[in-house]
Amino acid sequence: MVGYYIVVYDINEKRVAKVHKILREYLQWRQRSVFEGWLREEELTELMRKLSAVINEEEDSVLFYRLPSEKVIHSFHIGRPPDKFDNVI
Amino acid sequence: MVGYYIVVYDINEKRVAKVHKILREYLQWRQRSVFEGWLREEELTELMRKLSAVINEEEDSVLFYRLPSEKVIHSFHIGRPPDKFDNVI
Repeated sequence: MVGYYIVVYDINEKRVAKVHKILREYLQWRQRSVFEGWLREEELTELMRKLSAVINEEEDSVLFYRLPSEKVIHSFHIGRPPDKFDNVI
Repeated sequence: MVGYYIVVYDINEKRVAKVHKILREYLQWRQRSVFEGWLREEELTELMRKLSAVINEEEDSVLFYRLPSEKVIHSFHIGRPPDKFDNVI
């Protein structure tokens, strides 16, 4: 089963580069700590396993929102444009 | 029209307390830089006006996701639990 995910991390800066790198393998970067994109069930499992191996369970948190489709969301911002967004939306 | 919003901020630390305080007036705190909740159209307008008055357009960014209902999302996390979540979900 495929889902559209918004992922927001709150990670100690010591580990933030590693977490960022893992998330980039699977998702598109949206804002400093926000990624988005489609994941198949096995990709989600793999991503969560890789993140769990890197994060500190006491200090770090990664929040996942699963949506049935990116069509149900509408996004906009105020202030400077999001850092980057490669494609899709 | 009412919508369910996920709001993620990326704000210079000089202004983060002010932005956080404004967002708490309207939404529930989910994770360090993430808020969620229902907003009527006029509340959204008011919130955006207040945020615009405080943020620096060059340095700060606030990303809004609008959803038709919180029922379309399913959320979960890895690592430590989200900081706090008062109610609703």
